[in-house]
Amino acid sequence: MKRVYNFNPGPATLPLEVLQEAQAEFLNFDNSGMSILEISHRAKPYEKIHNQTKADILELMGLGEDYEVLFIQGGASLQFSMVPLNFATKEKPGSYVLSGTFSSNAYKEAEILGVGKVAASTKDENFKRVPRQDELKIDKNSAYLHICNNNTIFGTEFHYIPETDGVPLFADMSSDFLSRPWDFKKFSLIYVGVQKNLGPAGVVVVVAKKSLIEKSLETLPTMLRYDTFYRKNSLYNTPPAFSIYMVGKVAAWIKNQGGLAEMAKRNSKKAETLYKAIDDSNGFYSGHADKDSRSFMNVTFRLPNEDLEKKFVAEALENNLSGVKGHRSVGGMRASIYNAMTLEGVETLADFMEKFRRQNS
Amino acid sequence: MKRVYNFNPGPATLPLEVLQEAQAEFLNFDNSGMSILEISHRAKPYEKIHNQTKADILELMGLGEDYEVLFIQGGASLQFSMVPLNFATKEKPGSYVLSGTFSSNAYKEAEILGVGKVAASTKDENFKRVPRQDELKIDKNSAYLHICNNNTIFGTEFHYIPETDGVPLFADMSSDFLSRPWDFKKFSLIYVGVQKNLGPAGVVVVVAKKSLIEKSLETLPTMLRYDTFYRKNSLYNTPPAFSIYMVGKVAAWIKNQGGLAEMAKRNSKKAETLYKAIDDSNGFYSGHADKDSRSFMNVTFRLPNEDLEKKFVAEALENNLSGVKGHRSVGGMRASIYNAMTLEGVETLADFMEKFRRQNS
Repeated sequence: MKRVYNFNPGPATLPLEVLQEAQAEFLNFDNSGMSILEISHRAKPYEKIHNQTKADILELMGLGEDYEVLFIQGGASLQFSMVPLNFATKEKPGSYVLSGTFSSNAYKEAEILGVGKVAASTKDENFKRVPRQDELKIDKNSAYLHICNNNTIFGTEFHYIPETDGVPLFADMSSDFLSRPWDFKKFSLIYVGVQKNLGPAGVVVVVAKKSLIEKSLETLPTMLRYDTFYRKNSLYNTPPAFSIYMVGKVAAWIKNQGGLAEMAKRNSKKAETLYKAIDDSNGFYSGHADKDSRSFMNVTFRLPNEDLEKKFVAEALENNLSGVKGHRSVGGMRASIYNAMTLEGVETLADFMEKFRRQNS
Repeated sequence: MKRVYNFNPGPATLPLEVLQEAQAEFLNFDNSGMSILEISHRAKPYEKIHNQTKADILELMGLGEDYEVLFIQGGASLQFSMVPLNFATKEKPGSYVLSGTFSSNAYKEAEILGVGKVAASTKDENFKRVPRQDELKIDKNSAYLHICNNNTIFGTEFHYIPETDGVPLFADMSSDFLSRPWDFKKFSLIYVGVQKNLGPAGVVVVVAKKSLIEKSLETLPTMLRYDTFYRKNSLYNTPPAFSIYMVGKVAAWIKNQGGLAEMAKRNSKKAETLYKAIDDSNGFYSGHADKDSRSFMNVTFRLPNEDLEKKFVAEALENNLSGVKGHRSVGGMRASIYNAMTLEGVETLADFMEKFRRQNS
């Protein structure tokens, strides 16, 4: 079977074992005589995986009964609006740390509603690092402090959890969720567009303190209220069942592999391999991110000129290395190396980088 | 392979050929070396099916370039809010025909915003029929008249297209879209939760006049503006690619089978078969819907008492007939017989109904 190393930022590579399992049972889910695509979301076999997926996510995060897992559609982009609609007001605004494109987009939605404040920004440095703790100006009257944990486009990641002095901490964790042990209890609300590290596009996993989401504003549209999802176990309307089913399989796979500690071990080995290839290249490759903000999920780097960058992308593809072109905001290359990317794939890329450098220096 | 006849109302049965095709290419989409679940939504092979799906839907509907197809998440339930948010105001409200649960839910969302009016309702008759043209009181100042084309729960369907005297006609067609030729040009906006007649849960197909959606209110959250989807070809953020891919396969299947005329032929034959079983039962089975409002998609009927209804459900399942229990709002039975339900499945159910009647009269 032809299979490439897929370094795309999302949708992204998934564990091959998980895909094979889904393929094998595609026509007959849980011996129901129907596909997972065809089964009622009110049927017991579906309910079982829906609830197991929630339980596995909480277990992996080390969270207890004071947190709830919700499945919502619309992508992280809809969360950018749901968060301020549900929690921020002009009197008690949401504070935002701007560390990249998606955190800026989140802030924009709060701005549209007139309820956003900026706590810190590294925009002037083209987001090559995340703000330090000492740079965060958190209005104590904020409804929340919002961060984006990992910045897919710029290849930077928070390696500390901000101290907020009592302000609830919210995070978009779309691109590094479940990639490492993390003190999730410090967060009041987390949302994750799953198509990077957790499954196929089509569902957002929200993990929130129950006390925060058990009652929402009655003036909000029903589908924009967190309590609609909380009260009905995310089954108020038909959920994106197949996406949830795949998320469940990936969560189970993470557990079987050894959980977040094992993911972190593999992910840091992979990231080190690529950053070493950059750092040992005598300047042929230059990383975009400052070293202490380097992402373990998205490795961004430039080559000496754009012609070489085009050549790199083309020759990488010939070597079975797909999706290494960077985002136009940064230029150059980006290798996304989420949980499901194998060390073998990363080593193949590192070897290619070294060979390419020698041939083109 | 075990395969049941699946009469569930949604998610619902899909064409077996389509499922087999998706299964066969599940690990290697379009020879890309990755699964359709893993491929970038910016990649050419994905773009091709995204655009082909749009084109096939418009072709099946007989619509031209003045209409656009959008792919949006959140289910029809989110459309219930997006429609009034985008188009209705207190001065120019949305008018609603209440013919069942989902049209009432749509109206409720307009009410939350204070922009809804009722044009007609058959609630007092437990929605056993859709309102007649002469019952519609359409405020000429309305932003739109909203109907639900087919009422899944009650088993009723519009068999006429309302005349609106210039008011734009909007319709939720979730449960009978592409089941018959229909003069779609009379509609300004149509939305479809695809999990009944068109694919797996996870995407809503919106078909709207371009002139209506090319510019939305700037005060709305980005993901609730139709122009966000229109301007970016439904690729503003990551779309639910797998659901769209499956919708594309089902649309192609409908074309290959002979289009909407052929679907209507099969669907009326199937509906006639079941309604005959009801009408010829000497009152053992009684249909919920008035005859001239009977749905060709969802056939609802009662038995003489609830004990027999329970027995019917249990014995049906033993006969490989799944999902025939009705919704609690109506009680009794409901057989959902969308495009993908075969005549063989319907005849098996009709035979079972006759046998059950003889044994229990």
